[in-house]
Amino acid sequence: MKDEFQIISDKIKKSKSLFILTHRFPDGDTIGCAYAFCKAMLDMGKKAKVLCSDKIPDKFKFLQRNMLSADFEPDCIISVDVADPKLLGPNLEQYASKVDISIDHHLIHKKFAKVTLVKPDEAAACQVLYDLFQYMGISINQDIATSLYTGIATDTGCFKYKNANSKTHRIAAELIDCGADFRMVNRLMFETKTRERILLERLVLESLEFHCDNKCALICITESMKKQAGAGDEDVDGFASIPREIQEVQIGVTIREKSDKKYKISLRTNPPYNAAEICQKFGGGGHDAAAGCDIEGSLSEVKYAIIGEIEKYFNI
Amino acid sequence: MKDEFQIISDKIKKSKSLFILTHRFPDGDTIGCAYAFCKAMLDMGKKAKVLCSDKIPDKFKFLQRNMLSADFEPDCIISVDVADPKLLGPNLEQYASKVDISIDHHLIHKKFAKVTLVKPDEAAACQVLYDLFQYMGISINQDIATSLYTGIATDTGCFKYKNANSKTHRIAAELIDCGADFRMVNRLMFETKTRERILLERLVLESLEFHCDNKCALICITESMKKQAGAGDEDVDGFASIPREIQEVQIGVTIREKSDKKYKISLRTNPPYNAAEICQKFGGGGHDAAAGCDIEGSLSEVKYAIIGEIEKYFNI
Repeated sequence: MKDEFQIISDKIKKSKSLFILTHRFPDGDTIGCAYAFCKAMLDMGKKAKVLCSDKIPDKFKFLQRNMLSADFEPDCIISVDVADPKLLGPNLEQYASKVDISIDHHLIHKKFAKVTLVKPDEAAACQVLYDLFQYMGISINQDIATSLYTGIATDTGCFKYKNANSKTHRIAAELIDCGADFRMVNRLMFETKTRERILLERLVLESLEFHCDNKCALICITESMKKQAGAGDEDVDGFASIPREIQEVQIGVTIREKSDKKYKISLRTNPPYNAAEICQKFGGGGHDAAAGCDIEGSLSEVKYAIIGEIEKYFNI
Repeated sequence: MKDEFQIISDKIKKSKSLFILTHRFPDGDTIGCAYAFCKAMLDMGKKAKVLCSDKIPDKFKFLQRNMLSADFEPDCIISVDVADPKLLGPNLEQYASKVDISIDHHLIHKKFAKVTLVKPDEAAACQVLYDLFQYMGISINQDIATSLYTGIATDTGCFKYKNANSKTHRIAAELIDCGADFRMVNRLMFETKTRERILLERLVLESLEFHCDNKCALICITESMKKQAGAGDEDVDGFASIPREIQEVQIGVTIREKSDKKYKISLRTNPPYNAAEICQKFGGGGHDAAAGCDIEGSLSEVKYAIIGEIEKYFNI
């Protein structure tokens, strides 16, 4: 019986024109994977195009170099880092039932493609694609290496998160030796903030509160803060980890205003404290260490509700 | 002719009792290197002890596990990551002229030991030590791997800085496979902040100013901020990179109060702007991208002086 690698390899080799679909709200992994794949196909003389429901964020623009985009009809449609067809977003909905190959690394992947290559142990979809390229004997040039490195570095927080392992480092080493411009990627991804982002950070840090004998820390991100900082949605990522990173804090709470009197709560906890258990009280859910829920009310009502629940939880 | 590796290997193998000296104001690389070395010597049945002029910061305490510290006289003294005997600090001054072996990676290393192993291309002294262990056939157990990983990860900003390269990643992969508790190290080094540190960050961000059409950003760290946050000197590291990381900012300025009316200025620049050139105007110096100087006066006088010089520099 042929395994997925062989089936996918055969299909790609036969194909002459490919659409590569990313997930909506695109991140470095879906974009890195898509452009690495697109470049490899172009290098093989095929037609290929990356499609995304949303605008590619400016900070990933460097990956679009050397990518052809003339119009054509695809004979093969591939999705990368897309765990669920819903995540293709409104502009790619039309392809949801037509995906030939899906390459992913999410444990919660919901099968929707004709052939699926999902490796939940891999830190990034770009690692799965790297393995596929190795299998297919596709040589990794500088553009491909830079794209794959971008996905791996962003999905692991520059090798800092728990999902990074020795294989992650070995692939990074190989990509660097293939010419990946990792210094540029690291600078753009991890050492560059917009002015609006840092102004928002300042306001968010001003909202920092400690509760429950400093075992709980809380920050807020409101629309008025965003307005004051001139910040957009793209400047709001990554705040949820801030409160939990403070020493002695066991439960970190981030309250983000979604619309008038509606707030999204993100909880981050250290073991043995269970974030999902607390969020379930408000109809939310998630994992042991990271979970979320929505609460309606004024900001002070919402704070009161979530902190009250956390106080109860600590006292159990 | 024997090379340094062979000479050092012979000397270590003959030795029965070793002192391992770190530099003062110890960082993860000097401490990681020292404890990795100490553990390897203890495993070989030798006596070994790590000496540091300063107290080992609490966040590195986990590296001291399984380290013997009974009193003894050394037959071999080794320094690790020490670029200059002055950096041994007041409490280790007595050993400055007695160091048998110096293992380092600083380009500016000033030779002071009987045998010196300096590899300026290596991202961390721990990489040099890793190579020495390989040469000597010393097997890397979990404690040694965790110590070496700590040095490499901290000296490269978790593989983010320019000094990281493919060899860095390959060694990291090997250390992880040898059992390095890299997840614990990453969490402690890169995802943990003291409460005092985050309160200081809040105050420092409040001081953020933009100048020269946003091409220059400036932050201040004063004694009164430190007092208000309850922060100590150990909470003040790493601020100098903040202003330069803001998009469009070409020159980042950090003004830190040293004592009454005395301020230390740290400049970080993007090419082609030259930090050292600007700092030289105030009798300071450094590198193209990072330099420093001291300026006396009130905080507003100091700001006026440095911003004035930067305005002049931009207008050239």
